[in-house]
Amino acid sequence: MGFEENNGTSIQRRPAGYKPRRSLQSWLIGHPLNTADAPHQTITKIVGLAVFASDALSSTAYATQEMMVILALAGAAAFGNVFPITIAIVILLAILTFSYQQTIHAYPGGGGAYIVSRDNLGEIPAQVAGASLLMDYILTVAVSVSSGVAQIVSAFPGLEQIRVEIAVGLVVFIMLINLRGVKESGKAFAVPTYFFLIMVFITLGLGFFKMITGSLGNVVDPPQDLVVQVAQPLTLFLILRAFASGTTALTGVEAISNGITVFKKPASKNAGITLIWMAIILGTSLLGISYMAQHIGALPSEQETVISQLARTVYDNRGVLYLGMIISTMVILVMAANTAFADFPRLSAIQATDGFLPRQLAYRGSRLVYSRGIIALAAIASLLIIYFDASVTRLIPLYAIGVFLSFTLSQTGMARRWFKSGHLDAGKEVKERGSMLVHDPRWKFKMIINGIGAVMTAVVAIIFAVTKFHDGAYVVIIIIPVLVVIFISIRRHYISVAKALSLDKYGAPPRNQRNRVIVLISGVHRGTLAALRYARSLTDDITAVHISIDPEEAARIEKKWDTWGDGIRLVILDSPYRTFLEPLLDYIEELDDRRQPNEVITVIVPQFVSRKIWTGALHSRTAESLRKVLLNRNQVVVTEVPYQVD
Amino acid sequence: MGFEENNGTSIQRRPAGYKPRRSLQSWLIGHPLNTADAPHQTITKIVGLAVFASDALSSTAYATQEMMVILALAGAAAFGNVFPITIAIVILLAILTFSYQQTIHAYPGGGGAYIVSRDNLGEIPAQVAGASLLMDYILTVAVSVSSGVAQIVSAFPGLEQIRVEIAVGLVVFIMLINLRGVKESGKAFAVPTYFFLIMVFITLGLGFFKMITGSLGNVVDPPQDLVVQVAQPLTLFLILRAFASGTTALTGVEAISNGITVFKKPASKNAGITLIWMAIILGTSLLGISYMAQHIGALPSEQETVISQLARTVYDNRGVLYLGMIISTMVILVMAANTAFADFPRLSAIQATDGFLPRQLAYRGSRLVYSRGIIALAAIASLLIIYFDASVTRLIPLYAIGVFLSFTLSQTGMARRWFKSGHLDAGKEVKERGSMLVHDPRWKFKMIINGIGAVMTAVVAIIFAVTKFHDGAYVVIIIIPVLVVIFISIRRHYISVAKALSLDKYGAPPRNQRNRVIVLISGVHRGTLAALRYARSLTDDITAVHISIDPEEAARIEKKWDTWGDGIRLVILDSPYRTFLEPLLDYIEELDDRRQPNEVITVIVPQFVSRKIWTGALHSRTAESLRKVLLNRNQVVVTEVPYQVD
Repeated sequence: MGFEENNGTSIQRRPAGYKPRRSLQSWLIGHPLNTADAPHQTITKIVGLAVFASDALSSTAYATQEMMVILALAGAAAFGNVFPITIAIVILLAILTFSYQQTIHAYPGGGGAYIVSRDNLGEIPAQVAGASLLMDYILTVAVSVSSGVAQIVSAFPGLEQIRVEIAVGLVVFIMLINLRGVKESGKAFAVPTYFFLIMVFITLGLGFFKMITGSLGNVVDPPQDLVVQVAQPLTLFLILRAFASGTTALTGVEAISNGITVFKKPASKNAGITLIWMAIILGTSLLGISYMAQHIGALPSEQETVISQLARTVYDNRGVLYLGMIISTMVILVMAANTAFADFPRLSAIQATDGFLPRQLAYRGSRLVYSRGIIALAAIASLLIIYFDASVTRLIPLYAIGVFLSFTLSQTGMARRWFKSGHLDAGKEVKERGSMLVHDPRWKFKMIINGIGAVMTAVVAIIFAVTKFHDGAYVVIIIIPVLVVIFISIRRHYISVAKALSLDKYGAPPRNQRNRVIVLISGVHRGTLAALRYARSLTDDITAVHISIDPEEAARIEKKWDTWGDGIRLVILDSPYRTFLEPLLDYIEELDDRRQPNEVITVIVPQFVSRKIWTGALHSRTAESLRKVLLNRNQVVVTEVPYQVD
Repeated sequence: MGFEENNGTSIQRRPAGYKPRRSLQSWLIGHPLNTADAPHQTITKIVGLAVFASDALSSTAYATQEMMVILALAGAAAFGNVFPITIAIVILLAILTFSYQQTIHAYPGGGGAYIVSRDNLGEIPAQVAGASLLMDYILTVAVSVSSGVAQIVSAFPGLEQIRVEIAVGLVVFIMLINLRGVKESGKAFAVPTYFFLIMVFITLGLGFFKMITGSLGNVVDPPQDLVVQVAQPLTLFLILRAFASGTTALTGVEAISNGITVFKKPASKNAGITLIWMAIILGTSLLGISYMAQHIGALPSEQETVISQLARTVYDNRGVLYLGMIISTMVILVMAANTAFADFPRLSAIQATDGFLPRQLAYRGSRLVYSRGIIALAAIASLLIIYFDASVTRLIPLYAIGVFLSFTLSQTGMARRWFKSGHLDAGKEVKERGSMLVHDPRWKFKMIINGIGAVMTAVVAIIFAVTKFHDGAYVVIIIIPVLVVIFISIRRHYISVAKALSLDKYGAPPRNQRNRVIVLISGVHRGTLAALRYARSLTDDITAVHISIDPEEAARIEKKWDTWGDGIRLVILDSPYRTFLEPLLDYIEELDDRRQPNEVITVIVPQFVSRKIWTGALHSRTAESLRKVLLNRNQVVVTEVPYQVD
């Protein structure tokens, strides 16, 4: 409790005595955390890998199969291209990893593609990146939960009826865990993520061992439903499409760059190492699964996944390990949503801080996470799930375009950054908004790498947009510009408000202000008297006003006024159309016209308040409706004087 | 504009200058009506008959058939009882008419069974009557609209899919017409009602003419789906059940007694005459239809109504007149809902005036009808229709019990009134709440008539309750007591509020009140300064309070305060849990503890207001949440000082 005295103004600073109490909220998501605890709310690399990699890793569950589905159009012989295409994907993964590695170190505040675009490409590309990513995170939640539920439903067909309810329930569950805080959600979801990882490596490891020892056979009775009899020629376009389908495995690579601040210190270093781990695991799994799938002659199918064919071939049958693989795949698909829950709120908080999203998204909730962002994500994703009936087929065309758009922007931004870096004198430092720019002697090499990355990701984004256009991708192409316009309008609004409120070039306001008070009365009772008494404490210029709808009531008031009116002027306004607000507004307007510049009009509304909740509907809430219409009027203040009744 | 000066208090009375403007509302339901026009908002007997008789008359469309359905259980031979039972029903109709005729003259303010019970039987019977009638009006709307839609759908099976939508649309349509005012709805709905009446009398007239001339044959190919092969014995109970089914034709007889005030002056006389007209028309139609149906050998059926069999027999085939009869029947079934729309709002307004329902129901809307009651009826009936899927079969068991309960109460009440009247000295007058009681020399006769009516209607109510119990009537038996408890709680609440606000035994409040003002500030800007300036006009005891969540913001405020704080004390409360309300509430509580009895705390919240609507979500509405938590605190007033930003 320190006092500072200068200029005759005293400023007292003190901590609030408030201690959080137990409540439904604290039961659901835990006791509130002190702001001072923020540094402890960070996670290790091990937990971080689980949080941010689950999205990327989950895609190993379907990436190989997706490529094969496309190649199947050119007949079974085309499956020989699965492994080479996977190698190309892993090269792209390496470029992206390299690029994001640089981004993480250059922009330790997080924000990935958004910040890179903002600082190197400008406002609109940055908002495009932000919109694309936010949209894709929402879709990640909807798609991954829906696909997880689809697996659950195919195991328990009885649940088909409540598929949408299960999906929404899972979203709410993941939301609640995330609202508990980043450490809690990290720990909770690390178990299933590592379970999946271990199962993948056991399967692949055992598979390779058997292959080397020569005991690995082909898939027994592979499903035949997707092998095309009359094959198309294997065109470059078909190969590109298969490549694009496989690259969905790369969505999620950007995740860590958006969430750097969540890592223990040194955050950038830890985040960077985690990114490399993730890339190695992802790359190895992809190569391993594609290679094995090709080797054992797995076939793409609607009835049995490639992963299942692989597992039952490796384990010789459907034993415990097979079951472990299948269950862990089911769980990781749902888990992918968790990465979106880690990133969406952070990215939207950064955008909100920049003024492009509602400010409220930048405030931390009781558990030091951006609760509003988490809830917003859960709400929008749930609406999508309900709207699309939890159908993966209908949701998937919308997916992944956004991520690749953001990849392209981020690669281009980094390339531009290397260019700037190359034209900077050695030893000189330039402070940019989100980073410090220094000269890098290897700028040309790095620029070329990022340039290649930009072109490749752009190609993938275009292939996605073209091939999925009719299935719904056009929606994305409409939504992103709309979002960008909204973001920019929000920003413009905040700027204009800030300007209107700014004290620059603002003289001291004129001092003496006269208060003309209107006390609204519906009858003469204790509540009215309390309001009149309050009015007395404000000013001497008081007028009581009664809007008369019932002449009998008006007569009663007139009669009582002599005794209780305390000499205050009473105006009874007859309302021939039995409306309440309009005559009053006209009266206030009349006063307002005659108002002097230094006068203010205060409308006092006596409001009796019952402590019982259910009685609300039994009384009109005059003040509220009055406030709504008068808010836009300058120098008119509405005050409710409550009078408590038991 | 007269001034009265006594006791130094000036009271000015003047009409509001407000003229209603054009709006969506005035387009939908018409231009607002001046209260002074109320006497012109009355209807003639001809229109009144259409408004209030449509419910009762519509039941002639099915009453005969309903009796035959029951009698069919005892085999086709039992149909010979249809006409005798109808005679019994018409005798009951005569008793009810006689009784309500007396009620209308004794209670010219309207309210029927409710007022009669209130003044003669006590509060709880009155509320039972009110609850029964209100519930039955709601059911009338749901049942009649659903049955009308069922007829429409059987004519146009393609509409089956949107049955519920059509039903709700019709309810909304009838609601809008009723919101336009009583004259408008009366005129609009008079045409279909009289069309039906004319069609019934043409059919019956032509039928009797043909019968006398011997050219009336039997029904050709009567539907055979409901004639039971193995007949039960024709017991008294079966006859009673048939009687009860037929008495549904009497629901609606009470309608006029609830709506007396709507008639042109002399209202009671006009209402009474209309009631007699209605009874004669209803009785004649019932007797005519039952007699003819029996004569031509019509059979009850699910496939073809008795009315249809009658019409095609009379008209020899399905010509234009047949079609007219069928269409007018369809329309009158929907029209029956209109009677409920005329009565529900009036009855609920009477109950609201007595304090048993929310007061708002007693206020007349812009077209001088009880708009809130009309909207409430439409809303609840629509919910019922949606919940019961517009199924007549599921709704009908709930129907008619309420009316007969109210009949019984009204008959008992009137009997009790004659008893009181008989024990009064001739020439003496006793003023009761709703009427003037005088000696009636024929009291014994009248008391016996009403006594018989009470017993008969009670028997019907019990038969309904017993026979329909399993089909859903038990719901009614639960709901009526629940409603009565709610009504009485509402009344109790209003009484306790009135007592708490009463000025009886209340001394003048202590005069001088000191105002301690807290100005909440989130930053130092023009809005803050406007609030500080307003605070200055209230008092000198001002404390500015900033709840600090972001230390940087707090530092900025501290820095600016020297320049702009105008010497006002600033308290910065650090909120470690980033909550806003709780630290502030604690601070206010602290002040409140030290508050002197004649002090009041005013919390001023600067609120900047944007004229654009969509920007609302971009700013927190602190004042609103603060007001909600502080409303219950004595002597604490929350004031929002708006600052307009474009």
